[in-house]
Amino acid sequence: MNSELTEMLGLEFPVCGFSHCRDVVIALSKAGGLGVLGTARYSPEQFDIELSKIDEALDGKPYGVTIIFPAAKPDAQPMDPESLRSQVPEDYWDYIGSLKERFGIPLQSVDGPGDGAVNAYPLTRDHALAMLEVVKKHPVALVSSAIGAPPTDAVEELHALGMKVSGQVGDPKHVQRHLDAGVDLIVATGTEAGGHTGEIGSLVLTPQVVRAAGDIPVLTAGGVGTGAQVAAAFALGAQGVWMGSAWLVTQESDLPEPLKELLVKASVSDTRRSRSLSGRMARQLRTPWVEAWEEEGAPEPLLPPLQGVLVKDAQSAMLRAQGGVNSGTPVGQIVGDLTAIRPVRDVLQEIMADSVEAAERVQNAYSGLI
Amino acid sequence: MNSELTEMLGLEFPVCGFSHCRDVVIALSKAGGLGVLGTARYSPEQFDIELSKIDEALDGKPYGVTIIFPAAKPDAQPMDPESLRSQVPEDYWDYIGSLKERFGIPLQSVDGPGDGAVNAYPLTRDHALAMLEVVKKHPVALVSSAIGAPPTDAVEELHALGMKVSGQVGDPKHVQRHLDAGVDLIVATGTEAGGHTGEIGSLVLTPQVVRAAGDIPVLTAGGVGTGAQVAAAFALGAQGVWMGSAWLVTQESDLPEPLKELLVKASVSDTRRSRSLSGRMARQLRTPWVEAWEEEGAPEPLLPPLQGVLVKDAQSAMLRAQGGVNSGTPVGQIVGDLTAIRPVRDVLQEIMADSVEAAERVQNAYSGLI
Repeated sequence: MNSELTEMLGLEFPVCGFSHCRDVVIALSKAGGLGVLGTARYSPEQFDIELSKIDEALDGKPYGVTIIFPAAKPDAQPMDPESLRSQVPEDYWDYIGSLKERFGIPLQSVDGPGDGAVNAYPLTRDHALAMLEVVKKHPVALVSSAIGAPPTDAVEELHALGMKVSGQVGDPKHVQRHLDAGVDLIVATGTEAGGHTGEIGSLVLTPQVVRAAGDIPVLTAGGVGTGAQVAAAFALGAQGVWMGSAWLVTQESDLPEPLKELLVKASVSDTRRSRSLSGRMARQLRTPWVEAWEEEGAPEPLLPPLQGVLVKDAQSAMLRAQGGVNSGTPVGQIVGDLTAIRPVRDVLQEIMADSVEAAERVQNAYSGLI
Repeated sequence: MNSELTEMLGLEFPVCGFSHCRDVVIALSKAGGLGVLGTARYSPEQFDIELSKIDEALDGKPYGVTIIFPAAKPDAQPMDPESLRSQVPEDYWDYIGSLKERFGIPLQSVDGPGDGAVNAYPLTRDHALAMLEVVKKHPVALVSSAIGAPPTDAVEELHALGMKVSGQVGDPKHVQRHLDAGVDLIVATGTEAGGHTGEIGSLVLTPQVVRAAGDIPVLTAGGVGTGAQVAAAFALGAQGVWMGSAWLVTQESDLPEPLKELLVKASVSDTRRSRSLSGRMARQLRTPWVEAWEEEGAPEPLLPPLQGVLVKDAQSAMLRAQGGVNSGTPVGQIVGDLTAIRPVRDVLQEIMADSVEAAERVQNAYSGLI
């Protein structure tokens, strides 16, 4: 495959694969894509351990990480978990208590490094900077800013170490601030995506972001999970794709088996956009947790980072004690195309083979014109 | 272009162009696409006149029409406009009155054949059958069922006259009922679309509908307005595209000039999904009308057909007296790509030329593999 992404990062396939699971990241990079580790669940100490394991397993093959840089100003007060907890209104703790009772969630607090919970650490600037220091110690090929444009000084530090930096946008009007920050790559995330996402569909978003990005290459994210979408991304002007949902149901994924099976059974209509996990709008599986925040009389989710602080323990406990079938699970509309639990390598190879067929469909339709 | 759509209907380009405006339909079919006339604004008598004018202008070139078959059972009571008006709760008329005052809408009732209003006629079964009788008198190439699967007997009658029939779906689970009805073509309408639309993005929807449709060809609708999306549709497995929004701002379009200019200025973020026009969820420009139905204390829009009955006069008056800048205007997310008022032929030719470039991008990326 010829693309600016494969050239920039030395990849066989133009696919960045996002996962919170280290083994998925390793398998993706070994299979010719770029595994990108989501870091929201790690302490800086545990993150360092995870990256060392990846370094050892990949032996020089490229991989990436995400960092969530919060929008807070540099001079904002540091926010430790306890002071954040104290900012949550009392009636919200009451509502969480009622949900714990309703869903039979174990009441003990689950916390600490590497506990497997989503959003285990508050998305503060201090946390982001601590994570950045860890990144700088490892041979990371791509650092992706998951929300908002990365700070310019962080981009410069990473560039000095030979790392590439990408930013995600859900609206073309945000492209300029990423260009100003000096990113090397922009991920255009359509409304179809799992996790934090906007309202603009990928088919419209990618070409608009490509135009706004000028010479900076763009990837299509949101709604990508089969070969047809990979070929379509190139038609839309992208230089590759960013995929997350497809890896959730792989053999390497550390999601509980009951949750993997729920995802395999889900249809394209079984997701919702909801602020119930982090306070930001995120597409996720329509589970009892999500519905509990939409029902009559439910409180409006708090703003970030407080909603994440509020729900963290309950989410961890639901994932551990109940296999995650009730909890909030970020996943995109492509969930309807995930129909079996397979190894990462098989999934990636099938997607790429199917994308060649999709490219042939385009070639045939335009036969004599191209 | 080689596609099942161009072969089925004898077209130069694999593009169905939907418009409520007769002159746009004529220009589209003359330029090598298939103009498809939206019929929601016409009485059967006026519809007959419009089709006669199209027949004369096109002189045998193919064109299409939409018909809205309501979900009502065959034995449902006929619903005349007056009995429908009497079913609208009094406080809803009060709210319309307050909106007329707020927006300075002229108070006279605007009604009658060809008055230019959207949804000028209630979407009843009787009305649909009367429209069907008109269609049968004209050399229509494609009859598109705009909401839900068409009745099987209607499909058979149209087939007997040599016409093709298409149905629109926003969810792959609805494909089977269209296949059972005997349609020749399925239009997969993604959430990006203007007008009635679901929540599934086109990038995910088209491949799923293609799989569900088996041998029946599929078009991509929703988010299509530039050449990139036409080529992407073929990558996704479609045999062509269905476009509506792009024609709103053409020179041939009969939208008021102030509204055309508003659309040209709008960005991709300037649409909303709202039930405020017909009672069904429809994507439209975010105008004061739409916002008035979302604000604190506004009543929940009525179910169809009552919401359409309720808002008809106000919509007509806003369109006629105010150039449509406040009223509800169905348009898709592609509105951000509409940046000039041009002739239909120029728009179509540019889209097709750009789509050849998009196809070349795919060919280059997969060079050596296809």
